[in-house]
Order: sequence, then structure tokens, then C-alpha cells
Amino acid sequence: MKPLSECQIAVVGLGLMGGSLAGALTQSGYRVSGVARRGETIREALERGLIVKGDTDPLVIVPAADIVILATPVRTIIDQIGDLGSVLRPGCLLMDLGSTKGQIVDAMQRLPESIQPLGGHPMCGSEEAGIVAADPDLYRGASFILTPLERTSAEAVEWGTALARSVGAFPIVLDAERQDRLVATLSHLPYLLACALVRTADETTSLDPAAWRIVAGGYRDTSRVAGSDVSMMIDILQTNREPVLDAVRALRAHLDRLTEMVDRSAEDELRAALSACRDERRRMFS
Amino acid sequence: MKPLSECQIAVVGLGLMGGSLAGALTQSGYRVSGVARRGETIREALERGLIVKGDTDPLVIVPAADIVILATPVRTIIDQIGDLGSVLRPGCLLMDLGSTKGQIVDAMQRLPESIQPLGGHPMCGSEEAGIVAADPDLYRGASFILTPLERTSAEAVEWGTALARSVGAFPIVLDAERQDRLVATLSHLPYLLACALVRTADETTSLDPAAWRIVAGGYRDTSRVAGSDVSMMIDILQTNREPVLDAVRALRAHLDRLTEMVDRSAEDELRAALSACRDERRRMFS
Repeated sequence: MKPLSECQIAVVGLGLMGGSLAGALTQSGYRVSGVARRGETIREALERGLIVKGDTDPLVIVPAADIVILATPVRTIIDQIGDLGSVLRPGCLLMDLGSTKGQIVDAMQRLPESIQPLGGHPMCGSEEAGIVAADPDLYRGASFILTPLERTSAEAVEWGTALARSVGAFPIVLDAERQDRLVATLSHLPYLLACALVRTADETTSLDPAAWRIVAGGYRDTSRVAGSDVSMMIDILQTNREPVLDAVRALRAHLDRLTEMVDRSAEDELRAALSACRDERRRMFS
Repeated sequence: MKPLSECQIAVVGLGLMGGSLAGALTQSGYRVSGVARRGETIREALERGLIVKGDTDPLVIVPAADIVILATPVRTIIDQIGDLGSVLRPGCLLMDLGSTKGQIVDAMQRLPESIQPLGGHPMCGSEEAGIVAADPDLYRGASFILTPLERTSAEAVEWGTALARSVGAFPIVLDAERQDRLVATLSHLPYLLACALVRTADETTSLDPAAWRIVAGGYRDTSRVAGSDVSMMIDILQTNREPVLDAVRALRAHLDRLTEMVDRSAEDELRAALSACRDERRRMFS
């Protein structure tokens, strides 16, 4: 493999995640080209200096790249791994930015032997979407999970690690199953909870317009991620179903226990349980 | 009643909410005295200029005040309404800052006839607690719910409204039952959800320390209020039990419906439900 600094990088998908990554890599001195479905997106990415070259046809961009990063929704990534695998140049590192990794590494497993596959999941984002929201600083300070396959070489993992560091992120190497379980609890469950909370509040606000005026900070924060991009979230939920369902079951058990203590006015138990939550929350973000 | 500007105001309880309110009222030109359990708290409130006079004994402060504001936890407020009712001067306006209002207005109903009672619930706060966290700007921009009783005079409601405005808040007059139902969904439910989420994540993190490093923004926001003061929250949950239990039941039904769509891979239904949540969330905070 050639030195990373001499590599041509192609980012496929120039939405929030791909556009931001392209911009960050360009700022770090890499030569980055981009693929998007719409010519308008390419033009904006070029105008903003996020990429130096772009096209709506991946076949114009991808075969020339040493590193290809798929930054589309999870199930599109899975299709693209199959579609683009045969046009990648030998020795190419194929990465992705999908939030669930099990089905993606399964698809990567079927790539030609000459390709180095490496799953990636940067733990950053926003409720904004699209190239208009792209921000080269988005990755700064974020954890960047890397999920190598057994066939992935140590050098390919090093490239991925260096790429993550070059955009200001902290690489963490995990296997795909472990990452999928962790993000089910820490990311997909909070999303479903936020949605259920919004639906519950919606009932209340339909009955009483005053709710709109008194909506509390707790609600605002707890419901924030309900504003996330729906297509992206459906891909995530559908490709991580079992871990997500397990996480919901675990949460329901805890919610039932807390609610039952409130119902019984079991104050000592409630105090112990809520204090443990408070301490745990503080420990996690201290 | 005398002009509001000539009124002496006493704040009982100088924690985050009381200390902040005392400071904001002092900044607005009112003469504010304070009561706290500990002499140290009084000294800090005097040093920081939040109050001009203070004592650990309410009997030294409260009988001289034209307006008394109880800023202690809900069940302490209920006790204090009974204890202090007979020492208030005739014509005194007795307010409070408790988060639940049903049991408080019940207690206020039993005050001597010469007293004007007015429930209050400012929709602001933070996970910080105590006089050290007091901030005269805390109320700025917040909604300030006022719950008058049938016996409360229009002039007393006007005083409460003017007080709320003078600290930068927006007064909203609601009856106690309606406010308790609304905050059960918009404030107490998010708290219980945050606690259940922290307990669920705690199981995961106990099994896998990598969770600490990848904890996502969604989790951070959704769990934030789990760091709230436990004694305050237990008072709130115990004095608003039925509305809170109803809100949890409504949420569980929505969570079950969403989860069941994920389980069945019912994508069209899921897309419709999640899109409605996204739109509703955006509408609420646009």
C-alpha cells in the first residue's frame, strides 16, 4: 500500500456525514473526490471546496480511488458494496459510515479478495441533513468506531485509524456484533424513546394548546433525536432489529420497576433507584 | 394592596430556584429577604447580594413580608403552608415555586381568609442544585405557570403576573389540575424515561467498558434529566402520582406500537409514524 498522504480518496454520498468527512479530509490535505445522485449536490460540494472533483456516476470516480468511503444510508451501502466491488482497483480500502455494522460486514465479506474492507461508524451527527448542513468540524472530538473483518489487513486498519484521526476523531476498534449491541442501547433506543415521548406529548398538546407554551427543558432534550432523518433511521432499525428489540425490552423492564415503585409509594426503594441513576449519569459525563 | 414596588418580599428556601428568584427580584429593585435552614446559605446569599436580609428562623422574616414565596421541595411547601399560615400579615400574598400544584392548592385552601394564595411553577431549572448554582438570569425567557384558587383576588393574580414578568419570565395562568396533567407528560415522564435509559445503559456498560467511550449524543440528551435532584423529584412524583402513571401508560402504548412495527418490519407504517414524530418535534420547536 502506498503512503496514506498520496492516496486518492472517494466519498460516495455527500449528505451531512459524507459531505462533512470530505471537507475535513480536504482540509487535512487529502485529494478527495465525491459522488452524489444529484448534480446540484456535486456543484455545491465543489463550490464549498469540500471536494476537488465530483460526478453523479460512481464509475467515473470510484475506479481511480485508493480509498472509497460509502456515506449513504445503511441499506444503500449494502447494495453499493455489491455493485461497486468489481470496479474498485486492487488494493483499494473500502470503508463506510453506516450506523449498523452486522449486515454491512456480511456484504463486505463477499468482496473480491484484492479489496481491503473496513466498517466504520463515526459517533456524530445532527438533526440537520444534506450537503447544506455539511461541516468539516463535525467529526472533531467524536468517537469513530472501526469494525475490521478477519480478512482485513493490519495495514488497512492503520489507514482507517489514521483517517479517523486526521478528521479529529478518536478511533475505537470493535467487532461488528459488539458495536451493534452497544449502539442499539446508546443510540437507537434513545431515538425510539424520543419518538414515543413526542407521540405521547402530541396527544396532550392536541387536547391542551397550553402545552406548547410550557414545554419543559427535560422534554426538549429527551425528545431531540425524534427530529432525526426518518429514512436513515428506518435503515438503522431494520438492519439492527434484534439488538434494538432487546434494548427496548430491557428499558421497559426498568421503566416498569420505577413506575411500580411510584405506584406503591415505595419511597426508600425509589430513592435508592433514582440516586443510582443520578450517580451513574454523572459518572458517565463527569 | 400597596403598590408592588413598595412590597417587602420574603423567599423561603435559598436553593437553585429560590436563590435565583431572590437575586432576580433584588436586581429588579425589590427589597428581598430570605430564609434558609443553614446560616452558611444565608451568609452566601447576603455576600452575593441576592438578598438584603436573611435568617434561619422564618418567624424573624416572614411576618414582616407583603409577599412570601415558598421555594422548598413540594412536600416541605405543603408543611410550611400549614406552619406559616397563621404568622403571615393580613393581606399577604403567599406564593410557591413547587412543580406540582394539586396538593399545594389544597393546602392553600385552608389558609386564613386574610391571606391571598397563588400557586406558581416556573418552567426552568438545571441539574445543579443549591445556592452555589443560583443565577438571577435563570428565569429569563421561561414560562411561569400561575395557579390561582377560586378565593384568589384578581389583584393578587396581577401581582404574581407582574412578579413573573419582572424576572424575565412569561406568566401563564392555568388551573392546578390542568397544570399537573401537562407537566406529568412534559416534565415528569421525561425524567422517568431518562432514569430507565440510564439503568438500561448501565447494564450494557457493566458488560462492555467500550460503551463509555462511544456514548452517543442521543443518549447524552435523552438521559440528561436523570441527573436531577432526587429528593425534589421524589416529592414531585409522590404528589403527582396519578397523572404521572397515566403519562407512563400512554408512553408505553406508543413505544409498544413503534417496537411492534420494527419487529414486524412494517416499513410503511413505521415510516408514517416516525415521520409524524419528526414533523411534530420540529413544529414544537420551530
